[in-house]
Amino acid sequence: MSGSSNAATARPTLADLPLRPELVGEEPYGAPQLEVAVQLNVNENPYPPGPEVVADIAAAVATVAGRLNRYPDRDAWALREDLARYLGHGLTADQVWAANGSNEVMLQVLQAFGGPGRSALSFAPTYSMYPEYARDTHTRWLTAPRRADFTIDPQEAVAAVKEHAPDVVFVTSPNNPTGTAVALETLADICAAAPGVVVVDEAYVEFARTGTPSALALLPDFPRLAVSRTMSKAFAFAGGRLGYLAAAPAFVDALRIVRLPYHLSAVTQAVARVALAHADEMLAHVDLLRTERDQLATWLSEQGLEVAASDANFCLFGRFADRHRVWQALLDRDVLIRETGPDGWLRVSVGTHEEMATFTSALRQILDDPEISARKDAAR
Amino acid sequence: MSGSSNAATARPTLADLPLRPELVGEEPYGAPQLEVAVQLNVNENPYPPGPEVVADIAAAVATVAGRLNRYPDRDAWALREDLARYLGHGLTADQVWAANGSNEVMLQVLQAFGGPGRSALSFAPTYSMYPEYARDTHTRWLTAPRRADFTIDPQEAVAAVKEHAPDVVFVTSPNNPTGTAVALETLADICAAAPGVVVVDEAYVEFARTGTPSALALLPDFPRLAVSRTMSKAFAFAGGRLGYLAAAPAFVDALRIVRLPYHLSAVTQAVARVALAHADEMLAHVDLLRTERDQLATWLSEQGLEVAASDANFCLFGRFADRHRVWQALLDRDVLIRETGPDGWLRVSVGTHEEMATFTSALRQILDDPEISARKDAAR
Repeated sequence: MSGSSNAATARPTLADLPLRPELVGEEPYGAPQLEVAVQLNVNENPYPPGPEVVADIAAAVATVAGRLNRYPDRDAWALREDLARYLGHGLTADQVWAANGSNEVMLQVLQAFGGPGRSALSFAPTYSMYPEYARDTHTRWLTAPRRADFTIDPQEAVAAVKEHAPDVVFVTSPNNPTGTAVALETLADICAAAPGVVVVDEAYVEFARTGTPSALALLPDFPRLAVSRTMSKAFAFAGGRLGYLAAAPAFVDALRIVRLPYHLSAVTQAVARVALAHADEMLAHVDLLRTERDQLATWLSEQGLEVAASDANFCLFGRFADRHRVWQALLDRDVLIRETGPDGWLRVSVGTHEEMATFTSALRQILDDPEISARKDAAR
Repeated sequence: MSGSSNAATARPTLADLPLRPELVGEEPYGAPQLEVAVQLNVNENPYPPGPEVVADIAAAVATVAGRLNRYPDRDAWALREDLARYLGHGLTADQVWAANGSNEVMLQVLQAFGGPGRSALSFAPTYSMYPEYARDTHTRWLTAPRRADFTIDPQEAVAAVKEHAPDVVFVTSPNNPTGTAVALETLADICAAAPGVVVVDEAYVEFARTGTPSALALLPDFPRLAVSRTMSKAFAFAGGRLGYLAAAPAFVDALRIVRLPYHLSAVTQAVARVALAHADEMLAHVDLLRTERDQLATWLSEQGLEVAASDANFCLFGRFADRHRVWQALLDRDVLIRETGPDGWLRVSVGTHEEMATFTSALRQILDDPEISARKDAAR
């Protein structure tokens, strides 16, 4: 019987393992990865890289593959030079840092500037990964509220920063999951008030409406400001996992202390460099997606729904008495969107024109069924 | 003058930033990355992937590049199936976890099972990254000593585990930087005594002398045991950054809670799978490197040096009154080795036969100069 007793021992449940108490009952983060015809759930760019980019990526990888036995450049210097050039604003490689997605950049920021006995503040509702970064770095997580239209009130934001004196402030602009861009003056007010570091998360900035300035313009004035970006959204490079950040060289030095050595593979560095060399092609559909986004917002509004003003490649709409039911009814029609944001709201990514037609047609059917699509206010 | 005042503000030093206190004065981890003819400092496999592997890698990347606009499989399931198959021992994908280098695997282990108020123990001298993982996760770092020959005394190890009751134990076998393999009985004794989890770090296990068993054989008996591996060493895949771990499925579930979503890029997953499909070719030079290692150890010994018995692809030798001077004298002769390990010792990786000839010739010259190569004991 010892065999079966051993086997039982060797197949413990999570409850049998000495997991940290704050992780007990937690689930791995992420939207369901389902095989569905129309995927509008994780704000991807629906247009894949073209054949020329694909060929150049394969060629670049063939070159680095011949020396994969060697560790990569630990500082990813050539990539950071390319990213600095792409960002413009006179930035240089020593002001740029890159990691495996902006996830890893944010974790490194909290490892360097957050941690036990420290706190991080953001403006809710906002990106749902931030509390996880805080949890995983033992940083106290604080939120201050946005207005009902999801904009940030500059006076209230400054008051919250002064009250909580957070070590790290995250401001997402355009915000996820609401799409709301933050005015440059508001960002400057927050930076001026913040006693610690400020990260403006510009994951969706390339989708912002014309004339929306980037927080990069504030870098010369605020030494503790960092502006993070990602190649996962407008850049159509979610599978390549490349997030980055611009800040003062000393800020980058702080991240270099906590980064895992050789965190960026030789292949990741090479592939991202090819994508950056083809920036125009990679970003070719951004204007189309912005137009599609504006048309989507108009259409949702015309259906009598509430829609948050969006500078991103998604729209937050609602509010439904039972949003899960609407989400499920869309999934039943082969359209996957995201059940996220404040109660009653749903988030839909902007896809191709055909995908949006499928989505609007499916949603129209659902809205015609008052039992599924009852509005939140009406349900009260 | 406000321009120059702004410029001064925007170029803070690290001392001007609110870095966590324990990081102040810390340097980014890693051996110097110097352009030197003979690189024997980071235990790479000197043999690059062959043309067939390179071609298959380029082809696989061309396939995934066509959908890089989409996020990768968050669970890297196909890769984990391949890794399980490679490991054997009846393992399945749900018992295997992978990340960007074993660095990231170890960080995840400490995020899940270490952290504030918890401790991790290892047997010193050992891998110099462990204290950094501990620092970056706020885990208290403890060490118990090895014997003078760098082996672990089982009774003393068990006593140290019982005394400190660490939440995580790291046992490196073969050990870095000493090359020392740990007997399976000793590992079993440590697992039996440990109140928390035990990670046996087998980064160098493929280089172990014939007949050395892997701790994978202990997995059925110890539900809190994990065995970590890397593709960076024997597998000649340091540039690809792929570390992995085998453990009970619940242990893997714990790591899934703390992993960053989409931590492994689609490209990393594809390239690692190609390398695994070519495991025989990737590992083709391991026997040669083991022979070279044994010859190196004999040669070092014949020069009257102390040499630690090695089951890895490097040798620790010494002891010098001023090891930095010996290291520099080798570098002056275009041979880069590593200044690491206990005072007086140096570590040299096993390269090609030609590289070892250059190394031994250079070291012979240095040993002929008693001023540079004075031994530690003689210097006392």
